[in-house]
Amino acid sequence: MLERYGHGGDLRTAEENFGRPADQFVDFSSNMNPLGPPPLVHRALLSYAQQIGKYPDPAVRGLRAKLAKLHGIDEQCILIGNGAAELIDLTVRAVNPIITSLAFPCFSEYGDAVHKISSGIAPIMLKPENGFELTEEAIQSMTTAMEEPFYMLGSPNNPTGRLVHPALIRKLLAGGATVVVDEAFMDFVPEEADYSLVKEAAGNDRLYVIRSMTKFYAIPGIRLGYMVSTPERIAALRLLQVPWSVNSLAQIIGEGVLDDAEYAEKTLKWLEEERPWLISKLEGLGLSVTPSQTNYVLVRLPSLPNLTAAALQQEMGRRGVLIRDASHFVGLDDCYCRFAIKLRHDNEKLLEALAECLDDFKEDSRDKHE
Amino acid sequence: MLERYGHGGDLRTAEENFGRPADQFVDFSSNMNPLGPPPLVHRALLSYAQQIGKYPDPAVRGLRAKLAKLHGIDEQCILIGNGAAELIDLTVRAVNPIITSLAFPCFSEYGDAVHKISSGIAPIMLKPENGFELTEEAIQSMTTAMEEPFYMLGSPNNPTGRLVHPALIRKLLAGGATVVVDEAFMDFVPEEADYSLVKEAAGNDRLYVIRSMTKFYAIPGIRLGYMVSTPERIAALRLLQVPWSVNSLAQIIGEGVLDDAEYAEKTLKWLEEERPWLISKLEGLGLSVTPSQTNYVLVRLPSLPNLTAAALQQEMGRRGVLIRDASHFVGLDDCYCRFAIKLRHDNEKLLEALAECLDDFKEDSRDKHE
Repeated sequence: MLERYGHGGDLRTAEENFGRPADQFVDFSSNMNPLGPPPLVHRALLSYAQQIGKYPDPAVRGLRAKLAKLHGIDEQCILIGNGAAELIDLTVRAVNPIITSLAFPCFSEYGDAVHKISSGIAPIMLKPENGFELTEEAIQSMTTAMEEPFYMLGSPNNPTGRLVHPALIRKLLAGGATVVVDEAFMDFVPEEADYSLVKEAAGNDRLYVIRSMTKFYAIPGIRLGYMVSTPERIAALRLLQVPWSVNSLAQIIGEGVLDDAEYAEKTLKWLEEERPWLISKLEGLGLSVTPSQTNYVLVRLPSLPNLTAAALQQEMGRRGVLIRDASHFVGLDDCYCRFAIKLRHDNEKLLEALAECLDDFKEDSRDKHE
Repeated sequence: MLERYGHGGDLRTAEENFGRPADQFVDFSSNMNPLGPPPLVHRALLSYAQQIGKYPDPAVRGLRAKLAKLHGIDEQCILIGNGAAELIDLTVRAVNPIITSLAFPCFSEYGDAVHKISSGIAPIMLKPENGFELTEEAIQSMTTAMEEPFYMLGSPNNPTGRLVHPALIRKLLAGGATVVVDEAFMDFVPEEADYSLVKEAAGNDRLYVIRSMTKFYAIPGIRLGYMVSTPERIAALRLLQVPWSVNSLAQIIGEGVLDDAEYAEKTLKWLEEERPWLISKLEGLGLSVTPSQTNYVLVRLPSLPNLTAAALQQEMGRRGVLIRDASHFVGLDDCYCRFAIKLRHDNEKLLEALAECLDDFKEDSRDKHE
């Protein structure tokens, strides 16, 4: 039947059911204005104009098939989401843990999603003196007892840029825990094969891996992420997801970008050169840089009177350079900032503006001493 | 601060905070691949390529301001959603009713959203002999008692195409009920001013009105809807919504289409002419048509051996014409179909294929009698 996924307008199912191409149907099964989109939309999108007037594939079949092939896993192990944020929300609602263990500092969405379902939080505090690495000792230091342990961990972690070693996650799983690993920035890691748990998640009911496609492919405007777990777990998440959560432009672009091997190669090459260069320059300005394994760096500002992340953000913003005030992350004080790593000419602007601002703060403190 | 909405990459907040246009910042506050989107994306979208590499405005400010002006209500009374489907889901989760009253047949998402939160359903069965109109008598016939009455009603209702009279909804509200009115197809109603409850919803804590922008503007691929209620209710829904739920292309297009008054006028003119024409033709073929007040019609097939909605859908699909088998809607038997009203040349294809199929079914029944 045409309503395999509960609604009309499903041209892909029509294609499968009736054996003719999707574009050769006159669709009376969905209730759309037959005048087609207004001129503005056509002007704005041109080639996308052919697709936007049709419902997205509710099962996101094209992109799922491509990702399954890429990772060597079954399509049933993949759920596409309206950005990684939706997948975090769905997972927390599906697992519905009494207590969630988070390693701070981490992406604020974890805590927000957990609060929404009134789960408690068992905090693991990552230490600057260990470069914010998640270690077994850090986990053991957690004081809250958990009957059904549930962890949500970023790898690489945001804002620290540190990977979690797979051996550590395997140990948690072996101990009976359920673990969500957010690999939103994993594509930027050249040793992805050694660190990603995507393949294991496809065969483990207690392991969920979230990936984002919007960071690596620089398309946050369009919202696209995916989740990998066992077919049973994915089916349970899909039940909670609203229909057509993933718009059709995201689906088309998602399929397209996966073919661009050259882009991926070029990205890793850029990062390999740019990260050490930027880090050394930042250290030259007196900042402490957490050793990052991805495309951003967490830095600690030097001790100067009145120099806080908020004050620096304000001064940099006035110069047209936006930085992230990382003091809003639980576990970081007001001396932490996060910088994305960009192309050389932009990084030079960052460094120039930073140097100016730091000089100003030094000047201020000298003025006061005089 | 830049993280007013909890995250980096918020160029609109940057603009407000630092007094320079959004496109004149180098953004280090969000972690995006600085190579920019791959060539495919640029080729596919051209003018949109400037926006897709930036995060959507998390508060959807531009579109909310425009809708507020359009409806003459406060911006704080509007929440933009990733399609009306997301707003239905959020509302049900926020209200969290013990029992939900639905008037069947209705859009299946209502029941699905209600099931997800384990709410019971108090059914109101709409009657074909009343043209599926929702009346006070129908509501009183409901057998389930509700301590905190909660209704979710479509107006115009899908798949019946019938409006609910505002006086009836006001009566429910006066009786202490909370009411969600799904006005996804209201733009197609010329007497919208007499039927829409948008303005009242902005001032009533127990009234939620959902609107869709993807039906009237024929852009279902991109996902866009909005909700109107009081600022307090909207704030509560927003807490449950995942960040950047609404992609930036939807935001841009949403703002654009609202300026196209000519398109709206042309649409109403088309429907005014086409609906009575199509209905009379359908009746000429022996179908019973529910008197629709919007851009689709619910029809009952004539009694012929083997003629069911599913069988007709199959035969029509083979001819390249997709119709909705409406027997999947609770409260309708296997003789109901729903047809969108399209442009004349497409409607003629519908009628031609229908005539052929009905002849075949008559033929079959004659063959069997011989």
